[in-house]
Amino acid sequence: MAEDINAAPPFRRRVPEGDDRERLVCDSCGFIHYENPKIVVGSVARWGDRLLLCRRAIEPRRGYWTIPAGYMELAETSEEGARREAWEEARADLALDGLLAVYNIARISQVQLIYLARLTSDAVAAGPESAEVALVGWDDIPWDELAFPSVVWALRDYRRLLDRPGGLTGDFAPFGNPPGDRGDRRPAGL
Amino acid sequence: MAEDINAAPPFRRRVPEGDDRERLVCDSCGFIHYENPKIVVGSVARWGDRLLLCRRAIEPRRGYWTIPAGYMELAETSEEGARREAWEEARADLALDGLLAVYNIARISQVQLIYLARLTSDAVAAGPESAEVALVGWDDIPWDELAFPSVVWALRDYRRLLDRPGGLTGDFAPFGNPPGDRGDRRPAGL
Ligand SMILES: [Zn+2]
Ligand SMILES: [Zn+2]
Repeated sequence: MAEDINAAPPFRRRVPEGDDRERLVCDSCGFIHYENPKIVVGSVARWGDRLLLCRRAIEPRRGYWTIPAGYMELAETSEEGARREAWEEARADLALDGLLAVYNIARISQVQLIYLARLTSDAVAAGPESAEVALVGWDDIPWDELAFPSVVWALRDYRRLLDRPGGLTGDFAPFGNPPGDRGDRRPAGL
Repeated sequence: MAEDINAAPPFRRRVPEGDDRERLVCDSCGFIHYENPKIVVGSVARWGDRLLLCRRAIEPRRGYWTIPAGYMELAETSEEGARREAWEEARADLALDGLLAVYNIARISQVQLIYLARLTSDAVAAGPESAEVALVGWDDIPWDELAFPSVVWALRDYRRLLDRPGGLTGDFAPFGNPPGDRGDRRPAGL
């Protein structure tokens, strides 16, 4: 679903008149293609003390495990998007309990809004982008086979929330990137 | 700074092969222009008990008052974007204290990340997109001359935070849209 800038041969980078940054300008028609950061919406979704994970059936990171998440679409809210992604990837119906985290991956101009959620049923199943889905206890999380650093961040931040006084109840501030990490380093395998 | 889709005459909406949604496709070169929701980053920035407001020098809503906010740029984090916008619009240097609110404006596919911030100095000045800037006490907020509904939301949510036990200190969950409002109704004047 990622926008592939490389698929646009007639576009060239230059500073349009009256602007102060390079933009993609179409050589054939002059259209200015503004590039914007993209929003990923996702969730740490729990069923009792187990968490919903999906094994990716598509690149990047095919075969690795992730939380349900994907690009927000037009005309939906971020909450609607997080619920849609859980349905698309795991046939899971979610109730959202709050914003667990806002992560910035500056390297790829991505902002991730990750919600804390509860499954309304444990009847989950792999959608077209998943090879399999599973409800996994904390001790069974396949840490070495997680697809992206931000999946690790989200699971750890969930655990931090669980372990604080009050646990998952009450107000909490969303977590952010690990201190000092702008998400600008390319992780191994990506 | 808004992307003007109407400025792209050769683009036509159709469903590309292998996709399930209409996209903008360039008639002259076949480029698929994926449209994504856009991120606005901004802040409710305080100096003592006064708040930073900017009177807009540009459309839309020229002459109306807003909090410093604008489109997030590529390769920056949302926090960096909120600080950049405050500098661009009000020559204000900010320290961020947390995420005050996440607003969805589904009508225009916009997600707003609004931070609670402190000015590090009261030496503010209008940037190129502002006609004037002001540090305004709560009782002097020009409610009838605010530029956008989400500016009203942000100021009210700041006030809610201030009035809760603990005030602006300690953890708080970000506010969201007013209940039942997806941001899908066109406000008067917009
Ligand atoms: Zn073109
Ligand atoms: Zn073209």
